Amino acid sequence: MLEIMGYVAGSLTTLAFIPQVLQIYRTKSAKDVSLAMFLLFTAGVALWLGYGIMTHSFPVVAANAITLVLSFVILYFKWKYTRSSNI
Amino acid sequence: MLEIMGYVAGSLTTLAFIPQVLQIYRTKSAKDVSLAMFLLFTAGVALWLGYGIMTHSFPVVAANAITLVLSFVILYFKWKYTRSSNI
Repeated sequence: MLEIMGYVAGSLTTLAFIPQVLQIYRTKSAKDVSLAMFLLFTAGVALWLGYGIMTHSFPVVAANAITLVLSFVILYFKWKYTRSSNI
Repeated sequence: MLEIMGYVAGSLTTLAFIPQVLQIYRTKSAKDVSLAMFLLFTAGVALWLGYGIMTHSFPVVAANAITLVLSFVILYFKWKYTRSSNI
């Protein structure tokens, strides 16, 4: 039961980034998305991934690997679509 | 060492939302921030909080309690500043 709750929670916080990726891709605008947020977040997710690998925790590795890819895509979009200096 | 890595990772993925809150507050614009992302994310964080409470994990409770507040603030700003139908 608890395990299922953890998997659902992890799926939600991971998959949440998909609509953000799709929205930026569709609108070609990432002005309101904070660069600082995604830099900090991506660094944190990369650390979680390392933590998951070192503790041999498959759910932590899987969730953070997917989130890392999605947050890199958002950073790339942010770089690509925004010229103004939002921090 | 591993424990410190987990704390740093958790701090980064939690504190990351502060610059996003500040940016929306400053610009009064959340158009590019995906509503679907923050609805899914907030639901996931709420579940993580419940998971942390049920497993008596203080770091999970602390990180997710703070993230929950920040993501609620972002949802409130999104509702307040956006009338257009971004999903």
